[in-house]
Amino acid sequence: MPQLSSRIARAKPSAIMAIAEKAKQLKAEGRDIVSFSIGVPNFLPGDHVYAAAREALAKDSGQYGSNRGAADVLDAFLKHMEGIGLTGYTRDNCSVGVGAKHVIYNLAEALLDEGDTIAFPTPYWTSYMDIAEIVNAKVELLPCPPEQHYKLTPEQLDAALAKKPRVFLFNNPSNPTGMVYDKDEISALADVIAKYPDTWIITDDIYNRMVFDDVGYHNFVHARPELKDRVIFIDSLSKTYGMPGWRVGFMAGPEVVAKAVTTMNSNHITSLPEVVNAAAVAALSGPQDVPEAKVREFQAKRDEVLAVLDAIPGIVCPRPQGAFYVFPDISAYFGKSHAGQVIKDDVDLCKALLEAKGVACVPGSAFGEPRALRISYTCPTPQLQPGMQRIAEFFAEMA
Amino acid sequence: MPQLSSRIARAKPSAIMAIAEKAKQLKAEGRDIVSFSIGVPNFLPGDHVYAAAREALAKDSGQYGSNRGAADVLDAFLKHMEGIGLTGYTRDNCSVGVGAKHVIYNLAEALLDEGDTIAFPTPYWTSYMDIAEIVNAKVELLPCPPEQHYKLTPEQLDAALAKKPRVFLFNNPSNPTGMVYDKDEISALADVIAKYPDTWIITDDIYNRMVFDDVGYHNFVHARPELKDRVIFIDSLSKTYGMPGWRVGFMAGPEVVAKAVTTMNSNHITSLPEVVNAAAVAALSGPQDVPEAKVREFQAKRDEVLAVLDAIPGIVCPRPQGAFYVFPDISAYFGKSHAGQVIKDDVDLCKALLEAKGVACVPGSAFGEPRALRISYTCPTPQLQPGMQRIAEFFAEMA
Repeated sequence: MPQLSSRIARAKPSAIMAIAEKAKQLKAEGRDIVSFSIGVPNFLPGDHVYAAAREALAKDSGQYGSNRGAADVLDAFLKHMEGIGLTGYTRDNCSVGVGAKHVIYNLAEALLDEGDTIAFPTPYWTSYMDIAEIVNAKVELLPCPPEQHYKLTPEQLDAALAKKPRVFLFNNPSNPTGMVYDKDEISALADVIAKYPDTWIITDDIYNRMVFDDVGYHNFVHARPELKDRVIFIDSLSKTYGMPGWRVGFMAGPEVVAKAVTTMNSNHITSLPEVVNAAAVAALSGPQDVPEAKVREFQAKRDEVLAVLDAIPGIVCPRPQGAFYVFPDISAYFGKSHAGQVIKDDVDLCKALLEAKGVACVPGSAFGEPRALRISYTCPTPQLQPGMQRIAEFFAEMA
Repeated sequence: MPQLSSRIARAKPSAIMAIAEKAKQLKAEGRDIVSFSIGVPNFLPGDHVYAAAREALAKDSGQYGSNRGAADVLDAFLKHMEGIGLTGYTRDNCSVGVGAKHVIYNLAEALLDEGDTIAFPTPYWTSYMDIAEIVNAKVELLPCPPEQHYKLTPEQLDAALAKKPRVFLFNNPSNPTGMVYDKDEISALADVIAKYPDTWIITDDIYNRMVFDDVGYHNFVHARPELKDRVIFIDSLSKTYGMPGWRVGFMAGPEVVAKAVTTMNSNHITSLPEVVNAAAVAALSGPQDVPEAKVREFQAKRDEVLAVLDAIPGIVCPRPQGAFYVFPDISAYFGKSHAGQVIKDDVDLCKALLEAKGVACVPGSAFGEPRALRISYTCPTPQLQPGMQRIAEFFAEMA
């Protein structure tokens, strides 16, 4: 049999999916499972989104669409950006993808040659590493441990950019930590970025509408508008509107980058389906009551989750202010035992937690931080407290 | 400003789209344009497809789907394959993509390292070359001029495979030529392939249901079932069902290849939307009257187009037996003039034809055969004869 490419040998399936699969299997076996594992919003968009989709079906042309994205989709995203203070962009600055992950993949292909460096903070979203490995980029990790609240400092960024990576990839609010950079923090990082003109800056900010405690969403171009010629902003419908399955991602940035992504699209996906475009426009432009209610709900759930975690001795959990994740440092328990079984690391702990208590979390090592685990708290509300209580019991039982 | 990757410098937007854009622009200026350029089927699928899509909207989960493809979509494609005699495949042999082009892109990434050779016949579908260039493969072209009816001979294939390319990419029925290999021709090529175990064989056979004159659709694995461990069959909804905008492609082949494509999907697109899956299943599994009627219509249109072309002195046009293209050799006219303007090649000719007569065709050089042009005859029926008459006039006016 012939060989596969060396690229595919580097490609890995998602680590998060592996946990989700195991949880699904236990559920199928009749176990009562609470899933805190997969990062899905677990709500549906408003009825107007489905009405728009039905209308699009009634007038479907069946034809190929624009490689860049349908004009009304681009305009709806541009309007959405204006709502978070990102102004002065035109359609020529934009391109779409089959979800934000696909946009990031396209950007990796458009910006990185083999051996080029991409720098990003740890903890990172798993796909950053996976995609970087597929394009054979050199990865420079910028460790942001719980002691610094999982946040990058200007000094770290300065040291990293001084080495002139081709790309610096930033994620705010963060998956997996839920941390949000405030205005001053973003401003301080933007000052550093301004010093180093040879690096593309990707801000994967798909949780930009899911910010709590009035911290607000801030981007480097808010602080330093001249960075618009290097900053690539990424958005998506998935989390904000409860539409991960619809697969609509978006970028806005320098025209040359938007054109490159559009050219990549013309060489693989061609375009998004009309029914998907219609749903996207309706979600972005229609009533925002569903996503707004969800942000309030997630903020309250964040408080519930933190209250349980804070009461567990030895667990340290920086307070997240966005998205729908908490990322507690559980390393104080490594070396202890549960039900006679030694828990040596995050993977052991998540495995034991799933087996003993039927609660699925993702080990932090999937995100480059093996001292922690990720709890995604979007499960149905009645499951949240029981699930958290089982976590509390689990830790109480460790010795 | 930072640099883009060298990969993106190799990536080109589609040459066919450039002609389509020019035609669109002339139309917007009020010109009466007949488009024979873009390869779209120009019909809609049956109502049952839209009914299934509406039903899917009513029960949308909004969630991510399978990286490999939803089970019912895979099963529907497998059933479709059984209908053309490709049996013995299971879901593990399959994976989906956002259209066949995306599947081919995934395969290029999964099978080809930089500098590896991919061999394919000329004329070729434009994206083969574009995708090969993006992954920086070495392209070995196998010239199949009009004198050999644009078909690859076993001797050519033997010489090509003896050099052990990583991939041999085959397309039957062919875009741009409409040629279809008969049972004996496929069998003779399969015998050659069997001699060379180190090459993956991709059969991009998305027009497999659009075959005329009872030639039938034949695949190498029909002739040589043992080739199933190296042959990757590609299918799509786009052309058969009038659904190019829906973006559903499919592959079936060795499990290791299907797994590789699935892993690629998990790193960019994740999955297809539920509404798209439902439409795909309905198209593949529902009544086939629309596609069957369209095949009859296209066969009749093929005859009409050929009748006009055959009456033009100097034009040589091998008789296509599938898809919806004819690919006449118009090189006898190179060096002649139209309206005082010298036509030196296919690009000049297509440009003059569009400007003088408002008829858009694609120059053969886009497909690696500069002696020809491509006519895609799926325009609305009332436009076909007038459009062909304008072509006849154009050539009659050349001197």
